[in-house]
Amino acid sequence: MNQAHPAPFSVAIQGEAGAFSHEAGVNLFGPDLDLVPTRTFDDLFSAVVSGEADRGIVPVENTLAGSVPGNLQRVLESGLHVVGETRVRIRLLLLVEPGRQLSDVRRAASHPVALQQCFQFFREHPEIEPVPVYDTAGSVRDLMIGSAGYDAAIGSALAAEKYGAQALFHEIEDDHLNFTRFFAISREAERGPGKFSKTSLAFVVPHEPGSLHRALAVFSERGIDLTKLESSPIRGRPWEYRFFADLRADSAGVVEDSLAELADLGAECHVLGSYREWPPDA
Amino acid sequence: MNQAHPAPFSVAIQGEAGAFSHEAGVNLFGPDLDLVPTRTFDDLFSAVVSGEADRGIVPVENTLAGSVPGNLQRVLESGLHVVGETRVRIRLLLLVEPGRQLSDVRRAASHPVALQQCFQFFREHPEIEPVPVYDTAGSVRDLMIGSAGYDAAIGSALAAEKYGAQALFHEIEDDHLNFTRFFAISREAERGPGKFSKTSLAFVVPHEPGSLHRALAVFSERGIDLTKLESSPIRGRPWEYRFFADLRADSAGVVEDSLAELADLGAECHVLGSYREWPPDA
Repeated sequence: MNQAHPAPFSVAIQGEAGAFSHEAGVNLFGPDLDLVPTRTFDDLFSAVVSGEADRGIVPVENTLAGSVPGNLQRVLESGLHVVGETRVRIRLLLLVEPGRQLSDVRRAASHPVALQQCFQFFREHPEIEPVPVYDTAGSVRDLMIGSAGYDAAIGSALAAEKYGAQALFHEIEDDHLNFTRFFAISREAERGPGKFSKTSLAFVVPHEPGSLHRALAVFSERGIDLTKLESSPIRGRPWEYRFFADLRADSAGVVEDSLAELADLGAECHVLGSYREWPPDA
Repeated sequence: MNQAHPAPFSVAIQGEAGAFSHEAGVNLFGPDLDLVPTRTFDDLFSAVVSGEADRGIVPVENTLAGSVPGNLQRVLESGLHVVGETRVRIRLLLLVEPGRQLSDVRRAASHPVALQQCFQFFREHPEIEPVPVYDTAGSVRDLMIGSAGYDAAIGSALAAEKYGAQALFHEIEDDHLNFTRFFAISREAERGPGKFSKTSLAFVVPHEPGSLHRALAVFSERGIDLTKLESSPIRGRPWEYRFFADLRADSAGVVEDSLAELADLGAECHVLGSYREWPPDA
Protein backbone atom coordinates (compact mmCIF):
# COMPACT_ATOMS: atom_id res chain seq x y z
CA MET A 1 0.00 0.00 0.00
CA ASN A 2 2.99 2.34 0.37
CA GLN A 3 3.70 5.24 -1.90
CA ALA A 4 7.21 6.24 -2.87
CA HIS A 5 8.16 7.48 0.61
CA PRO A 6 10.78 5.34 2.35
CA ALA A 7 10.23 4.65 6.07
CA PRO A 8 11.08 5.35 8.82
CA PHE A 9 9.70 8.85 9.00
CA SER A 10 8.57 10.42 12.21
CA VAL A 11 4.89 11.10 11.67
CA ALA A 12 2.71 13.25 13.95
CA ILE A 13 -0.97 12.42 14.42
CA GLN A 14 -3.72 13.84 16.62
CA GLY A 15 -4.65 11.11 19.08
CA GLU A 16 -3.09 7.89 20.27
CA ALA A 17 -1.42 4.97 18.50
CA GLY A 18 -4.17 2.93 16.81
CA ALA A 19 -6.19 6.01 15.80
CA PHE A 20 -7.55 6.14 12.23
CA SER A 21 -4.91 8.83 11.59
CA HIS A 22 -2.32 6.19 12.47
CA GLU A 23 -3.86 3.82 9.92
CA ALA A 24 -3.68 6.63 7.33
CA GLY A 25 0.01 7.10 8.20
CA VAL A 26 0.67 3.38 7.70
CA ASN A 27 -1.08 3.54 4.30
CA LEU A 28 1.21 6.35 3.19
CA PHE A 29 4.51 5.60 4.94
CA GLY A 30 4.42 1.90 5.82
CA PRO A 31 4.17 0.13 9.19
CA ASP A 32 7.67 1.14 10.39
CA LEU A 33 6.87 4.80 10.85
CA ASP A 34 7.97 6.49 14.04
CA LEU A 35 4.69 7.77 15.51
CA VAL A 36 4.45 11.15 17.29
CA PRO A 37 1.04 11.25 19.07
CA THR A 38 -0.24 14.77 19.89
CA ARG A 39 -3.22 15.96 21.91
CA THR A 40 -4.82 18.57 19.62
CA PHE A 41 -4.72 19.50 15.93
CA ASP A 42 -2.80 22.68 16.85
CA ASP A 43 -0.19 20.52 18.64
CA LEU A 44 0.05 18.30 15.55
CA PHE A 45 0.78 21.26 13.25
CA SER A 46 3.32 22.66 15.75
CA ALA A 47 5.13 19.30 15.84
CA VAL A 48 5.66 19.41 12.06
CA VAL A 49 6.49 23.14 11.88
CA SER A 50 9.09 22.80 14.66
CA GLY A 51 10.72 19.74 13.10
CA GLU A 52 9.77 17.43 15.98
CA ALA A 53 8.07 15.30 13.30
CA ASP A 54 8.98 14.89 9.61
CA ARG A 55 5.38 14.57 8.47
CA GLY A 56 1.88 15.08 9.85
CA ILE A 57 -1.35 13.23 9.08
CA VAL A 58 -4.42 15.49 9.02
CA PRO A 59 -8.04 14.36 8.56
CA VAL A 60 -9.77 16.81 6.22
CA GLU A 61 -13.19 15.34 5.44
CA ASN A 62 -15.47 12.43 6.23
CA THR A 63 -18.13 11.10 3.86
CA LEU A 64 -20.83 11.25 6.57
CA ALA A 65 -19.80 14.17 8.79
CA GLY A 66 -18.30 16.44 6.10
CA SER A 67 -15.32 18.71 6.49
CA VAL A 68 -13.19 18.50 9.65
CA PRO A 69 -13.59 22.06 11.00
CA GLY A 70 -10.50 24.24 10.76
CA ASN A 71 -8.01 21.74 9.37
CA LEU A 72 -7.72 23.17 5.83
CA GLN A 73 -7.37 26.61 7.39
CA ARG A 74 -4.59 25.21 9.62
CA VAL A 75 -2.73 23.87 6.55
CA LEU A 76 -3.00 27.31 4.91
CA GLU A 77 -1.86 29.26 7.99
CA SER A 78 0.95 26.88 8.92
CA GLY A 79 2.71 27.34 5.58
CA LEU A 80 3.17 23.54 5.45
CA HIS A 81 2.74 21.64 2.18
CA VAL A 82 0.31 18.88 1.32
CA VAL A 83 2.48 16.03 0.00
CA GLY A 84 0.00 13.16 -0.14
CA GLU A 85 -3.53 11.99 0.50
CA THR A 86 -5.15 8.74 1.55
CA ARG A 87 -8.66 7.52 2.34
CA VAL A 88 -9.46 5.20 5.23
CA ARG A 89 -12.66 3.25 5.66
CA ILE A 90 -13.95 3.80 9.20
CA ARG A 91 -14.55 0.26 10.45
CA LEU A 92 -15.59 0.13 14.11
CA LEU A 93 -15.02 -3.01 16.19
CA LEU A 94 -16.46 -3.93 19.57
CA LEU A 95 -13.35 -4.79 21.58
CA VAL A 96 -12.91 -6.56 24.91
CA GLU A 97 -10.13 -8.15 26.92
CA PRO A 98 -9.28 -11.62 25.52
CA GLY A 99 -11.57 -14.28 26.96
CA ARG A 100 -14.48 -11.94 27.66
CA GLN A 101 -17.86 -12.52 25.98
CA LEU A 102 -20.73 -10.35 24.87
CA SER A 103 -22.67 -11.29 28.02
CA ASP A 104 -19.86 -9.68 30.10
CA VAL A 105 -20.30 -6.29 28.42
CA ARG A 106 -22.30 -3.64 30.29
CA ARG A 107 -20.47 -0.41 29.36
CA ALA A 108 -18.79 0.32 25.98
CA ALA A 109 -16.58 3.41 25.62
CA SER A 110 -15.46 5.46 22.62
CA HIS A 111 -15.34 8.99 21.20
CA PRO A 112 -18.88 10.49 21.02
CA VAL A 113 -18.77 10.57 17.20
CA ALA A 114 -17.89 6.85 17.06
CA LEU A 115 -20.68 6.02 19.55
CA GLN A 116 -23.14 7.99 17.45
CA GLN A 117 -22.10 6.06 14.32
CA CYS A 118 -23.04 2.81 16.13
CA PHE A 119 -26.61 3.90 16.89
CA GLN A 120 -28.16 0.66 15.54
CA PHE A 121 -25.79 -1.53 17.57
CA PHE A 122 -26.81 0.17 20.82
CA ARG A 123 -30.47 -0.12 19.82
CA GLU A 124 -30.09 -3.86 19.35
CA HIS A 125 -28.17 -4.17 22.64
CA PRO A 126 -30.07 -2.01 25.12
CA GLU A 127 -28.25 -3.76 28.00
CA ILE A 128 -24.99 -2.05 26.88
CA GLU A 129 -24.49 1.54 27.95
CA PRO A 130 -22.48 3.86 25.65
CA VAL A 131 -19.74 5.73 27.55
CA PRO A 132 -18.30 8.84 25.85
CA VAL A 133 -14.54 9.36 26.27
CA TYR A 134 -11.93 11.69 24.77
CA ASP A 135 -10.35 9.42 22.16
CA THR A 136 -11.28 6.28 20.19
CA ALA A 137 -7.88 4.55 20.33
CA GLY A 138 -7.39 5.84 23.88
CA SER A 139 -10.55 4.00 24.95
CA VAL A 140 -9.02 0.71 23.72
CA ARG A 141 -5.70 1.41 25.44
CA ASP A 142 -7.40 2.32 28.75
CA LEU A 143 -9.62 -0.78 28.53
CA MET A 144 -6.55 -3.01 28.24
CA ILE A 145 -4.67 -1.21 31.02
CA GLY A 146 -7.64 -2.29 33.11
CA SER A 147 -8.15 0.95 35.01
CA ALA A 148 -11.11 2.17 32.93
CA GLY A 149 -14.66 2.13 34.24
CA TYR A 150 -15.97 0.14 31.26
CA ASP A 151 -15.67 -3.41 29.95
CA ALA A 152 -15.60 -2.79 26.19
CA ALA A 153 -14.28 -0.18 23.78
CA ILE A 154 -15.21 0.70 20.21
CA GLY A 155 -12.19 1.27 18.00
CA SER A 156 -10.19 0.29 14.94
CA ALA A 157 -8.59 -3.04 13.99
CA LEU A 158 -5.21 -1.31 14.33
CA ALA A 159 -6.01 -0.29 17.93
CA ALA A 160 -7.08 -3.90 18.68
CA GLU A 161 -3.77 -5.20 17.34
CA LYS A 162 -1.75 -2.46 19.07
CA TYR A 163 -3.19 -3.06 22.54
CA GLY A 164 -4.02 -6.78 22.30
CA ALA A 165 -7.79 -6.43 22.51
CA GLN A 166 -10.16 -9.04 21.11
CA ALA A 167 -12.96 -8.22 18.66
CA LEU A 168 -16.47 -9.50 19.46
CA PHE A 169 -17.93 -7.76 16.38
CA HIS A 170 -16.11 -6.33 13.38
CA GLU A 171 -18.28 -3.72 11.64
CA ILE A 172 -20.75 -2.27 14.10
CA GLU A 173 -20.89 1.14 12.38
CA ASP A 174 -24.37 1.92 10.96
CA ASP A 175 -23.16 3.00 7.55
CA HIS A 176 -20.34 1.13 5.79
CA LEU A 177 -19.87 3.95 3.24
CA ASN A 178 -17.98 5.80 5.94
CA PHE A 179 -14.56 7.03 4.80
CA THR A 180 -12.19 9.71 6.04
CA ARG A 181 -9.75 11.48 3.75
CA PHE A 182 -6.39 12.49 5.18
CA PHE A 183 -3.62 14.78 3.97
CA ALA A 184 0.06 14.16 4.65
CA ILE A 185 1.79 17.47 5.42
CA SER A 186 5.45 18.40 5.40
CA ARG A 187 7.75 21.42 5.68
CA GLU A 188 8.97 20.83 2.12
CA ALA A 189 6.84 20.50 -1.01
CA GLU A 190 6.95 17.03 -2.57
CA ARG A 191 9.58 16.69 -5.29
CA GLY A 192 9.66 12.92 -5.75
CA PRO A 193 9.63 11.21 -9.15
CA GLY A 194 6.45 10.64 -11.15
CA LYS A 195 3.37 12.69 -11.88
CA PHE A 196 1.33 14.56 -9.32
CA SER A 197 -2.27 14.27 -10.44
CA LYS A 198 -3.85 16.37 -7.71
CA THR A 199 -3.42 19.93 -6.47
CA SER A 200 -5.10 21.48 -3.42
CA LEU A 201 -5.45 25.24 -3.24
CA ALA A 202 -7.17 28.05 -1.38
CA PHE A 203 -8.54 31.07 -3.21
CA VAL A 204 -10.57 34.19 -2.56
CA VAL A 205 -12.43 35.78 -5.47
CA PRO A 206 -13.31 39.48 -5.69
CA HIS A 207 -16.53 40.23 -3.76
CA GLU A 208 -18.72 40.86 -6.82
CA PRO A 209 -21.47 39.01 -8.71
CA GLY A 210 -20.29 36.22 -11.02
CA SER A 211 -16.73 36.13 -9.69
CA LEU A 212 -16.83 32.49 -8.56
CA HIS A 213 -18.28 31.42 -11.89
CA ARG A 214 -15.45 33.22 -13.73
CA ALA A 215 -12.88 31.58 -11.45
CA LEU A 216 -14.23 28.08 -12.09
CA ALA A 217 -14.22 28.77 -15.85
CA VAL A 218 -10.43 28.98 -15.60
CA PHE A 219 -10.32 25.29 -14.63
CA SER A 220 -13.25 24.07 -16.69
CA GLU A 221 -11.88 25.54 -19.95
CA ARG A 222 -8.65 23.58 -19.46
CA GLY A 223 -10.42 20.28 -18.74
CA ILE A 224 -9.24 20.36 -15.11
CA ASP A 225 -11.62 18.35 -12.90
CA LEU A 226 -12.66 20.11 -9.70
CA THR A 227 -13.07 17.13 -7.35
CA LYS A 228 -13.88 19.21 -4.24
CA LEU A 229 -14.95 22.78 -3.51
CA GLU A 230 -15.63 24.00 -0.02
CA SER A 231 -16.19 27.46 1.44
CA SER A 232 -14.94 28.84 4.72
CA PRO A 233 -15.60 32.24 6.36
CA ILE A 234 -12.85 34.87 6.30
CA ARG A 235 -12.13 36.32 9.74
CA GLY A 236 -12.56 40.09 9.71
CA ARG A 237 -14.56 40.08 6.47
CA PRO A 238 -18.12 39.05 7.45
CA TRP A 239 -20.10 37.24 4.72
CA GLU A 240 -17.02 36.80 2.51
CA TYR A 241 -15.62 33.33 1.91
CA ARG A 242 -12.39 31.57 1.06
CA PHE A 243 -12.73 28.51 -1.17
CA PHE A 244 -10.65 25.38 -0.75
CA ALA A 245 -10.48 23.39 -3.99
CA ASP A 246 -8.98 20.11 -5.13
CA LEU A 247 -8.03 19.83 -8.79
CA ARG A 248 -7.27 16.74 -10.83
CA ALA A 249 -5.09 17.40 -13.89
CA ASP A 250 -2.58 15.33 -15.83
CA SER A 251 -0.02 18.07 -16.31
CA ALA A 252 1.55 20.50 -13.86
CA GLY A 253 1.79 23.07 -16.68
CA VAL A 254 -1.94 23.31 -17.15
CA VAL A 255 -2.44 23.88 -13.41
CA GLU A 256 0.20 26.64 -13.39
CA ASP A 257 -1.47 28.33 -16.36
CA SER A 258 -4.83 28.26 -14.61
CA LEU A 259 -3.39 29.79 -11.44
CA ALA A 260 -1.80 32.60 -13.43
CA GLU A 261 -5.14 33.35 -15.06
CA LEU A 262 -6.87 33.22 -11.66
CA ALA A 263 -4.46 35.89 -10.38
CA ASP A 264 -5.25 38.03 -13.47
CA LEU A 265 -8.93 37.88 -12.44
CA GLY A 266 -8.01 39.46 -9.11
CA ALA A 267 -8.22 36.25 -7.04
CA GLU A 268 -5.89 35.70 -4.06
CA CYS A 269 -4.58 32.19 -4.51
CA HIS A 270 -2.38 29.85 -2.41
CA VAL A 271 -1.32 26.37 -3.48
CA LEU A 272 -1.40 24.00 -0.50
CA GLY A 273 0.40 21.27 -2.42
CA SER A 274 0.55 18.94 -5.42
CA TYR A 275 0.60 15.20 -4.82
CA ARG A 276 -0.26 11.77 -6.14
CA GLU A 277 -3.86 10.66 -5.84
CA TRP A 278 -4.22 7.70 -3.46
CA PRO A 279 -5.79 5.27 -4.00
CA PRO A 280 -5.28 6.28 -7.67
CA ASP A 281 -8.68 5.17 -8.94
CA ALA A 282 -10.88 6.50 -6.11
CA MET B 1 -36.77 46.00 13.51
CA ASN B 2 -39.80 43.79 12.73
CA GLN B 3 -40.54 42.50 9.30
CA ALA B 4 -44.07 42.16 7.99
CA HIS B 5 -44.99 39.29 10.30
CA PRO B 6 -47.55 40.18 12.95
CA ALA B 7 -46.90 38.81 16.45
CA PRO B 8 -47.70 36.79 18.44
CA PHE B 9 -46.36 33.73 16.73
CA SER B 10 -45.19 30.71 18.64
CA VAL B 11 -41.51 30.44 17.75
CA ALA B 12 -39.30 27.43 18.52
CA ILE B 13 -35.60 27.91 19.26
CA GLN B 14 -32.81 25.59 20.34
CA GLY B 15 -31.81 26.64 23.85
CA GLU B 16 -33.36 28.77 26.58
CA ALA B 17 -35.04 32.18 26.62
CA GLY B 18 -32.32 34.81 26.17
CA ALA B 19 -30.34 32.73 23.67
CA PHE B 20 -29.05 34.48 20.53
CA SER B 21 -31.71 32.50 18.64
CA HIS B 22 -34.28 34.27 20.84
CA GLU B 23 -32.76 37.64 19.86
CA ALA B 24 -33.02 36.59 16.19
CA GLY B 25 -36.68 35.72 16.76
CA VAL B 26 -37.33 39.14 18.30
CA ASN B 27 -35.65 40.79 15.27
CA LEU B 28 -37.98 38.96 12.92
CA PHE B 29 -41.25 38.68 14.86
CA GLY B 30 -41.11 41.38 17.54
CA PRO B 31 -40.80 41.11 21.33
CA ASP B 32 -44.28 39.60 21.89
CA LEU B 33 -43.47 36.23 20.35
CA ASP B 34 -44.53 33.13 22.22
CA LEU B 35 -41.22 31.29 22.73
CA VAL B 36 -40.95 27.47 22.51
CA PRO B 37 -37.52 26.47 23.88
CA THR B 38 -36.23 23.05 22.73
CA ARG B 39 -33.22 21.00 23.77
CA THR B 40 -31.68 20.00 20.41
CA PHE B 41 -31.86 21.12 16.78
CA ASP B 42 -33.78 17.92 15.95
CA ASP B 43 -36.34 18.81 18.64
CA LEU B 44 -36.64 22.32 17.19
CA PHE B 45 -37.44 20.99 13.70
CA SER B 46 -39.92 18.47 15.16
CA ALA B 47 -41.72 21.26 17.03
CA VAL B 48 -42.33 23.15 13.76
CA VAL B 49 -43.18 20.06 11.68
CA SER B 50 -45.72 18.88 14.30
CA GLY B 51 -47.38 22.30 14.59
CA GLU B 52 -46.35 22.77 18.24
CA ALA B 53 -44.68 25.99 17.01
CA ASP B 54 -45.67 28.26 14.11
CA ARG B 55 -42.10 29.15 13.23
CA GLY B 56 -38.57 28.03 14.05
CA ILE B 57 -35.34 30.01 14.28
CA VAL B 58 -32.29 28.14 13.00
CA PRO B 59 -28.67 29.37 13.11
CA VAL B 60 -27.01 28.50 9.78
CA GLU B 61 -23.61 30.19 9.81
CA ASN B 62 -21.29 32.27 11.95
CA THR B 63 -18.67 34.66 10.57
CA LEU B 64 -15.92 33.12 12.74
CA ALA B 65 -16.92 29.46 13.12
CA GLY B 66 -18.49 28.95 9.68
CA SER B 67 -21.48 26.80 8.89
CA VAL B 68 -23.54 25.30 11.74
CA PRO B 69 -23.13 21.57 11.02
CA GLY B 70 -26.24 19.82 9.75
CA ASN B 71 -28.75 22.65 9.92
CA LEU B 72 -29.13 23.28 6.17
CA GLN B 73 -29.46 19.51 5.72
CA ARG B 74 -32.18 19.53 8.40
CA VAL B 75 -34.08 22.27 6.54
CA LEU B 76 -33.88 20.20 3.34
CA GLU B 77 -34.95 16.91 4.97
CA SER B 78 -37.74 18.45 7.07
CA GLY B 79 -39.59 19.79 4.03
CA LEU B 80 -40.01 23.08 5.93
CA HIS B 81 -39.64 26.42 4.12
CA VAL B 82 -37.21 29.25 4.77
CA VAL B 83 -39.39 32.35 5.20
CA GLY B 84 -36.90 34.89 6.50
CA GLU B 85 -33.34 35.58 7.58
CA THR B 86 -31.66 37.81 10.13
CA ARG B 87 -28.14 38.46 11.36
CA VAL B 88 -27.27 38.93 15.01
CA ARG B 89 -24.05 40.38 16.33
CA ILE B 90 -22.70 38.07 19.03
CA ARG B 91 -22.06 40.45 21.95
CA LEU B 92 -20.96 38.65 25.10
CA LEU B 93 -21.47 40.24 28.52
CA LEU B 94 -19.95 39.27 31.86
CA LEU B 95 -23.02 38.95 34.07
CA VAL B 96 -23.39 38.74 37.85
CA GLU B 97 -26.13 39.02 40.46
CA PRO B 98 -26.98 42.71 41.07
CA GLY B 99 -24.64 44.26 43.65
CA ARG B 100 -21.73 41.90 42.96
CA GLN B 101 -18.38 43.28 41.76
CA LEU B 102 -15.56 42.02 39.62
CA SER B 103 -13.55 41.20 42.76
CA ASP B 104 -16.32 38.73 43.75
CA VAL B 105 -15.94 36.72 40.55
CA ARG B 106 -13.93 33.47 40.73
CA ARG B 107 -15.80 31.20 38.29
CA ALA B 108 -17.54 32.34 35.07
CA ALA B 109 -19.77 29.87 33.21
CA SER B 110 -20.95 29.67 29.61
CA HIS B 111 -21.12 27.38 26.58
CA PRO B 112 -17.61 26.21 25.54
CA VAL B 113 -17.79 28.14 22.24
CA ALA B 114 -18.64 31.39 24.07
CA LEU B 115 -15.81 30.80 26.57
CA GLN B 116 -13.40 30.23 23.70
CA GLN B 117 -14.49 33.49 22.07
CA CYS B 118 -13.49 35.35 25.28
CA PHE B 119 -9.91 34.03 25.28
CA GLN B 120 -8.37 37.50 25.79
CA PHE B 121 -10.68 38.31 28.69
CA PHE B 122 -9.61 35.17 30.57
CA ARG B 123 -5.97 35.94 29.79
CA GLU B 124 -6.33 39.39 31.33
CA HIS B 125 -8.19 37.94 34.35
CA PRO B 126 -6.25 34.81 35.31
CA GLU B 127 -8.02 34.81 38.70
CA ILE B 128 -11.31 33.91 36.94
CA GLU B 129 -11.80 30.29 35.99
CA PRO B 130 -13.89 29.50 32.85
CA VAL B 131 -16.59 26.90 33.58
CA PRO B 132 -18.09 25.11 30.54
CA VAL B 133 -21.83 24.45 30.71
CA TYR B 134 -24.48 23.23 28.27
CA ASP B 135 -26.10 26.51 27.25
CA THR B 136 -25.20 30.23 27.19
CA ALA B 137 -28.58 31.61 28.25
CA GLY B 138 -29.01 28.67 30.63
CA SER B 139 -25.81 29.69 32.43
CA VAL B 140 -27.34 33.12 33.14
CA ARG B 141 -30.63 31.62 34.31
CA ASP B 142 -28.88 29.13 36.62
CA LEU B 143 -26.65 31.89 38.00
CA MET B 144 -29.71 33.93 38.97
CA ILE B 145 -31.55 30.93 40.46
CA GLY B 146 -28.52 30.80 42.74
CA SER B 147 -27.99 27.04 42.67
CA ALA B 148 -25.08 27.09 40.19
CA GLY B 149 -21.51 26.46 41.27
CA TYR B 150 -20.25 29.71 39.73
CA ASP B 151 -20.54 33.43 40.47
CA ALA B 152 -20.69 34.87 36.93
CA ALA B 153 -22.08 33.88 33.55
CA ILE B 154 -21.23 34.98 30.02
CA GLY B 155 -24.28 35.65 27.90
CA SER B 156 -26.33 38.07 25.84
CA ALA B 157 -27.93 41.39 26.78
CA LEU B 158 -31.31 39.72 26.25
CA ALA B 159 -30.46 36.99 28.77
CA ALA B 160 -29.34 39.66 31.27
CA GLU B 161 -32.67 41.47 30.87
CA LYS B 162 -34.66 38.21 30.96
CA TYR B 163 -33.18 36.93 34.20
CA GLY B 164 -32.33 40.24 35.92
CA ALA B 165 -28.56 39.86 35.84
CA GLN B 166 -26.20 42.83 35.95
CA ALA B 167 -23.45 43.42 33.38
CA LEU B 168 -19.92 44.10 34.65
CA PHE B 169 -18.52 44.22 31.09
CA HIS B 170 -20.41 44.56 27.83
CA GLU B 171 -18.28 43.25 24.94
CA ILE B 172 -15.79 40.73 26.23
CA GLU B 173 -15.70 38.71 22.99
CA ASP B 174 -12.25 38.79 21.29
CA ASP B 175 -13.54 39.65 17.84
CA HIS B 176 -16.36 42.16 17.37
CA LEU B 177 -16.90 41.07 13.74
CA ASN B 178 -18.75 38.08 15.11
CA PHE B 179 -22.20 37.61 13.59
CA THR B 180 -24.56 34.68 13.29
CA ARG B 181 -27.05 34.35 10.48
CA PHE B 182 -30.40 32.72 11.24
CA PHE B 183 -33.21 31.39 9.08
CA ALA B 184 -36.86 31.53 10.06
CA ILE B 185 -38.58 28.30 9.02
CA SER B 186 -42.26 27.50 8.61
CA ARG B 187 -44.56 24.74 7.35
CA GLU B 188 -45.86 27.12 4.66
CA ALA B 189 -43.81 29.04 2.11
CA GLU B 190 -43.93 32.82 2.60
CA ARG B 191 -46.63 34.52 0.55
CA GLY B 192 -46.69 37.97 2.15
CA PRO B 193 -46.72 41.23 0.16
CA GLY B 194 -43.60 42.76 -1.33
CA LYS B 195 -40.57 41.41 -3.14
CA PHE B 196 -38.47 38.49 -1.99
CA SER B 197 -34.89 39.34 -2.90
CA LYS B 198 -33.27 36.13 -1.70
CA THR B 199 -33.69 32.45 -2.49
CA SER B 200 -31.96 29.54 -0.77
CA LEU B 201 -31.64 26.25 -2.57
CA ALA B 202 -29.90 22.89 -2.50
CA PHE B 203 -28.60 21.28 -5.69
CA VAL B 204 -26.57 18.30 -6.83
CA VAL B 205 -24.80 18.49 -10.19
CA PRO B 206 -23.95 15.45 -12.34
CA HIS B 207 -20.69 13.82 -11.18
CA GLU B 208 -18.57 14.90 -14.18
CA PRO B 209 -15.86 17.50 -14.89
CA GLY B 210 -17.08 21.06 -15.36
CA SER B 211 -20.61 20.42 -14.08
CA LEU B 212 -20.43 22.93 -11.20
CA HIS B 213 -19.06 25.59 -13.54
CA ARG B 214 -21.97 25.01 -15.96
CA ALA B 215 -24.46 25.18 -13.07
CA LEU B 216 -23.09 28.52 -11.83
CA ALA B 217 -23.21 29.90 -15.38
CA VAL B 218 -26.99 29.57 -15.18
CA PHE B 219 -27.05 32.21 -12.41
CA SER B 220 -24.17 34.33 -13.63
CA GLU B 221 -25.61 34.78 -17.13
CA ARG B 222 -28.83 36.18 -15.61
CA GLY B 223 -27.02 38.61 -13.30
CA ILE B 224 -28.09 36.63 -10.22
CA ASP B 225 -25.64 37.20 -7.36
CA LEU B 226 -24.53 34.03 -5.57
CA THR B 227 -24.03 35.33 -2.02
CA LYS B 228 -23.18 31.96 -0.49
CA LEU B 229 -22.12 28.54 -1.77
CA GLU B 230 -21.37 25.67 0.54
CA SER B 231 -20.80 21.97 -0.05
CA SER B 232 -21.98 19.07 2.05
CA PRO B 233 -21.30 15.33 1.64
CA ILE B 234 -24.07 13.10 0.28
CA ARG B 235 -24.71 10.06 2.46
CA GLY B 236 -24.31 6.85 0.44
CA ARG B 237 -22.38 8.57 -2.36
CA PRO B 238 -18.79 8.96 -1.07
CA TRP B 239 -16.86 11.97 -2.50
CA GLU B 240 -20.00 13.48 -4.06
CA TYR B 241 -21.40 16.74 -2.72
CA ARG B 242 -24.64 18.66 -2.41
CA PHE B 243 -24.33 22.42 -2.73
CA PHE B 244 -26.37 24.85 -0.67
CA ALA B 245 -26.60 28.24 -2.38
CA ASP B 246 -28.10 31.63 -1.59
CA LEU B 247 -29.13 33.78 -4.53
CA ARG B 248 -29.93 37.46 -4.63
CA ALA B 249 -32.19 38.47 -7.51
CA ASP B 250 -34.75 41.22 -8.01
CA SER B 251 -37.33 39.12 -9.78
CA ALA B 252 -38.85 35.75 -8.94
CA GLY B 253 -39.20 35.05 -12.68
CA VAL B 254 -35.47 35.13 -13.31
CA VAL B 255 -34.88 32.68 -10.44
CA GLU B 256 -37.54 30.30 -11.80
CA ASP B 257 -35.95 30.43 -15.26
CA SER B 258 -32.55 29.62 -13.83
CA LEU B 259 -33.93 26.63 -11.88
CA ALA B 260 -35.58 25.27 -15.01
CA GLU B 261 -32.29 25.51 -16.88
CA LEU B 262 -30.48 23.85 -13.97
CA ALA B 263 -32.88 20.90 -14.21
CA ASP B 264 -32.19 20.71 -17.97
CA LEU B 265 -28.49 20.33 -17.13
CA GLY B 266 -29.33 17.23 -15.08
CA ALA B 267 -29.04 18.87 -11.66
CA GLU B 268 -31.28 17.75 -8.77
CA CYS B 269 -32.58 20.98 -7.28
CA HIS B 270 -34.70 21.85 -4.20
CA VAL B 271 -35.78 25.38 -3.28
CA LEU B 272 -35.59 25.85 0.50
CA GLY B 273 -37.42 29.17 0.34
CA SER B 274 -37.62 32.71 -0.97
CA TYR B 275 -37.63 35.58 1.48
CA ARG B 276 -36.78 39.21 2.14
CA GLU B 277 -33.17 40.04 2.89
CA TRP B 278 -32.70 41.30 6.46
CA PRO B 279 -31.14 43.67 7.22
CA PRO B 280 -31.74 44.76 3.59
CA ASP B 281 -28.35 46.35 3.02
CA ALA B 282 -26.13 43.72 4.67
